[in-house]
Amino acid sequence: MAEPEGLPVRPTITVFEASPDRGRGLARDMRVRWALEEVGLVYDVRRVSFEAMKEPAHLALNPFGQIPTYEEGSLALFETGSIILHIAQNHAGLLPSDADGRARAITWMFAAVSTVEPPIVEWASFFLFERDQSGYAARLPMLLDRIRVRLGQLSSHMGEADWLDGGFSAADIMMVHVLRRLGSSGLLDEYPGLAAYIARAEARPAYQRAFADQLAVFVDSQS
Amino acid sequence: MAEPEGLPVRPTITVFEASPDRGRGLARDMRVRWALEEVGLVYDVRRVSFEAMKEPAHLALNPFGQIPTYEEGSLALFETGSIILHIAQNHAGLLPSDADGRARAITWMFAAVSTVEPPIVEWASFFLFERDQSGYAARLPMLLDRIRVRLGQLSSHMGEADWLDGGFSAADIMMVHVLRRLGSSGLLDEYPGLAAYIARAEARPAYQRAFADQLAVFVDSQS
Repeated sequence: MAEPEGLPVRPTITVFEASPDRGRGLARDMRVRWALEEVGLVYDVRRVSFEAMKEPAHLALNPFGQIPTYEEGSLALFETGSIILHIAQNHAGLLPSDADGRARAITWMFAAVSTVEPPIVEWASFFLFERDQSGYAARLPMLLDRIRVRLGQLSSHMGEADWLDGGFSAADIMMVHVLRRLGSSGLLDEYPGLAAYIARAEARPAYQRAFADQLAVFVDSQS
Repeated sequence: MAEPEGLPVRPTITVFEASPDRGRGLARDMRVRWALEEVGLVYDVRRVSFEAMKEPAHLALNPFGQIPTYEEGSLALFETGSIILHIAQNHAGLLPSDADGRARAITWMFAAVSTVEPPIVEWASFFLFERDQSGYAARLPMLLDRIRVRLGQLSSHMGEADWLDGGFSAADIMMVHVLRRLGSSGLLDEYPGLAAYIARAEARPAYQRAFADQLAVFVDSQS
């Protein structure tokens, strides 16, 4: 059935059928859910198994076989930065209204995934796949120090500010979600300003709705 | 002196005073130079030493102490994805004209830095900092295989296409530059389609002008 004219197309995102984080909101669909909640967009969710993520139907949406994907009518996107930028460009509330402020927010979206996230993912993968190997303990401090470099720089940049650059924006969604992955590392205890930044973000009603929704999917997968 | 009214502000980018890649075009200013050449924008270059990159003046432009940065009047940006998107949004030639095509190109810009580049940087850092360690040879194949997964997926996506999604775009600048870092690995020999993709990009006059300019800076630094 065609959508009534004038109404926006309701987007559909894909999520893990049973998230390996057990509902802690670390899977990347959390970012997109959060952005959609911030702008008040209703969306549909399609659950995808690990097997289905590698099948042609999903690879047509994301050639790298990951979640989340985003479908809106005939448009299909992947990469959380791109999806959230698309949402932010079409709905008020996630980007500054002036062109320079928007460009700076986009800089911070890229910084989150390109500069801050890679050493965190490297550490997380190392823990996940190599913690039983003999060289693990010797190599771990170096990986943690690489993360500390980024956390220290980010912390210096923020100072006493509430958000990355002026008001809350899509960049904060990206950065906070990237940092949350460090929850189990203990590293955030060394940067109380960043811990407060994350707590400030997690207190937002849109964050809490998104968190509850992704948790519900995990709980349902276990029943 | 104020710019004559109506003329665009000439941007300034920062680059390594003496690039550690010895002029092979692997430093990230190459991406921005290439984009500026594609749209025909004249720009200024400021050379920054490793020491100066960690000083307050540079950290005010990029809190993570890296090059390139981009200054255009009072606007200062970092992150190559953000800089190139800014250029592409303000000058014709680097993004499709339709909204959906633009959104997909931005997806691929994020994919380059967020999905394809991290395992390549992990491997490159491992080689750079740990090749003399005892565990190097045992661990290397795993890192190369992680890159192969991405190269295989990218290769499958492209098939016989010349560019990532329709015509040449800012996304190809990002992706080709990310892949070029694999030149010394031998991995690209396993993916002739990707090697041809890189060669196709390198044949562009804008690429060649950008490459010559960054090489000239390195040659000058050695004299």
